[in-house]
Amino acid sequence: MAQKKFIGIDVGGTNIKAALVKNGKILAHLRTPTHAAGGFKSSFDQIRAAVTAYIDQAAGIGIGIAGLIDSRTGVVRYSPNLPGWNNIQLASMLRNEFLKPVKILNDVNAFCLGEWQYGAGKGYNNVFLLTLGTGVGGAAVVEGVPLFGANGFAGELGHSVIHENGPKCPCGNRGCLERYVGARHLVALAQKKMKGTRSSLRKHQELSPRLIAQEAKKGDKTAVAVFEEIGYYVGVGISNIIVLFDPDVIIVSGGVAKAGKVLTDAIKKTVAQRVMGAEFRKFKIIPPRLGDDAGVLGAVYHASK
Amino acid sequence: MAQKKFIGIDVGGTNIKAALVKNGKILAHLRTPTHAAGGFKSSFDQIRAAVTAYIDQAAGIGIGIAGLIDSRTGVVRYSPNLPGWNNIQLASMLRNEFLKPVKILNDVNAFCLGEWQYGAGKGYNNVFLLTLGTGVGGAAVVEGVPLFGANGFAGELGHSVIHENGPKCPCGNRGCLERYVGARHLVALAQKKMKGTRSSLRKHQELSPRLIAQEAKKGDKTAVAVFEEIGYYVGVGISNIIVLFDPDVIIVSGGVAKAGKVLTDAIKKTVAQRVMGAEFRKFKIIPPRLGDDAGVLGAVYHASK
Repeated sequence: MAQKKFIGIDVGGTNIKAALVKNGKILAHLRTPTHAAGGFKSSFDQIRAAVTAYIDQAAGIGIGIAGLIDSRTGVVRYSPNLPGWNNIQLASMLRNEFLKPVKILNDVNAFCLGEWQYGAGKGYNNVFLLTLGTGVGGAAVVEGVPLFGANGFAGELGHSVIHENGPKCPCGNRGCLERYVGARHLVALAQKKMKGTRSSLRKHQELSPRLIAQEAKKGDKTAVAVFEEIGYYVGVGISNIIVLFDPDVIIVSGGVAKAGKVLTDAIKKTVAQRVMGAEFRKFKIIPPRLGDDAGVLGAVYHASK
Repeated sequence: MAQKKFIGIDVGGTNIKAALVKNGKILAHLRTPTHAAGGFKSSFDQIRAAVTAYIDQAAGIGIGIAGLIDSRTGVVRYSPNLPGWNNIQLASMLRNEFLKPVKILNDVNAFCLGEWQYGAGKGYNNVFLLTLGTGVGGAAVVEGVPLFGANGFAGELGHSVIHENGPKCPCGNRGCLERYVGARHLVALAQKKMKGTRSSLRKHQELSPRLIAQEAKKGDKTAVAVFEEIGYYVGVGISNIIVLFDPDVIIVSGGVAKAGKVLTDAIKKTVAQRVMGAEFRKFKIIPPRLGDDAGVLGAVYHASK
C-alpha cells in the first residue's frame, strides 16, 4: 500500500508549525506566531486554520502540544504557555469537525519520536531526549516503544528533583532541575556572576541564553563559567536519567543547548564523575539532527501508528 | 500446548532460592545460605547444585542475581555482594553444562516481573518496583514491556541523586538516594536522633531497621521520627520516578518497607506535596504481594519469554 499523507502540527507558546508529511518527508509547511494571549479560542482557531490548509490531502492529523497531555484520551489537561487550555478535548473536537483520525501528544514526546524515527536517535531502542529552553522537558523511547506512561505525562525531567531542599519551583516542588537551568535562571546566574567583573556580558542591556552563549564562544570567562555551572546541573539530571533509563543515546536539544561545546563538555564531565558503573556502560550524549522539523515529524509518526 | 516447567533461581548476598515453576505456580523449592565469602567458585557451585536438583523436569532456567547484569549477553558484570563475580558469563556456562536455555537478569528486575505478572502489579502496563534494604534497588515495566535498557542496568533508583551536593556514595556519586535511606544510614540516623532522649531505642545493644520499626509501632517518638525522615527521602525519590516514568503503580518492597504505615504515610505525604500536576494524575503506592517468591517467579517469567 502506498504511504499516506498526514498533517503534523507543533503547537508551542511562541509558534505554531504545521506540515503535510509523507513517509517522513515534509511536502509543505506553514508557520505562524501563536496567539497565546488571546486565550483558548484564539489559538484553537489557529490550529483549525492549519488543519484546513492541508486536510483535503491528509489521512489523519497528529498534534504535539506543550503541557500535560493525556494522549490516550486526547485531552489537553493543562498547558503553562497557553492560557485557557484546561481540560480541552482537542482530539475529539478536531475529529468531529474534520472527520479524520486525530492524535495528540506532548510536544517533547513528538520531538523525541521525530528524532528517534528520522534523526539522531534512529536505529536505537532506548532513547532519551531533553529540551533545554525556557523550561526543561524530556521524553523517552524504551525498548523500542514510545513511553507515555499511565497518564501520558512521562519524561518530565525538568520537574525531577536534583536537590531535595533546593529552591521552590512554581510547580510546587523544590529543587527541580528546571529551577536551576531554565532560561530565566540561566540569565539570573549570569547577572550574579558578572557583578564586579570586566565580563563583556555587562555591555548588554538585556541578557539572553543566546547572547551569553555568543560571549562564551568569544572566550568571555564569566559566560563560560555560566555554561559550566549549567552543564554541571544538567549533567546531574542526565546522570539520573542514565541510571534510571539506561538509554543508548541522550539527545540534548533546545535553544540553550545551542551553546554547544562549552555546555556539552561540562555535561559529559559531570556524567563521567557521577554515573554508577560508568566503566560497564555504553551510552552517547549527542545533539539533535532534525532541528525545527522534529515536532511535526514526530506528531505524524504518532498519528500514523 | 501444555505449559512447560522452568527453574527459577534468586541469587542474593544472603540466600540462594531455587524453585521449579509451572504457569506461575511453585511446584518445589529449596533455599540455602549463600557462600559469598568463598568467592566465585563457591557460590557458582551452589547455583549448579540448585539447577541439578530440578533440571530433568525443566525446559529452561531463569536466574535473578544482584548486581550489574547484562541480561542480553548473559554476563554478570559486577555484583557488590558476591566477591569475585566480575564479567562472569553465567548464562553460557550453565547452558554449556546443562544443555538447556538459560536467561539471567538483575534480581530487582526479577522481583518486578514477578509482582507484575502474578502480584501487586498484575494488570498494569506501567509499574515501578523499588526495594528498600541494605541497598535501594528499582526496576520498571513500561508500556507493558520490561525495561532493561541499553546495557541491562535500568532502574537503579538507589544511585539516582536527590541532593546534587549531598554526601559521597561508595558508587562514586554524591547525594544518592541509597546514601540517605539504605539500612546502614537508617540505623545511623536513629543513633543520632536518640542521643539525649528517653527513646526506648537506647535499651538495645545493637539497632537494626527491624528493631527500629518495632519500636516505632509501639509508639516510640524517636523511632517514628526516623521513619518519617526516611519516608521523606524515599518520597522525594518516588516523586522523581512519578514525573519520569508516570507509572500506574509504585510497589514499595524490601525489609525496610516492612515498617509499614509510619513509613508509607511519610512517603505519600511527600509525594502529594512534590509531584508536578498531581491533581491530573492517577497512581498508587502499594506494598508487594508475593513476598519471597517474587524473584524466582519473575526469573522464570523472563526465561519463558
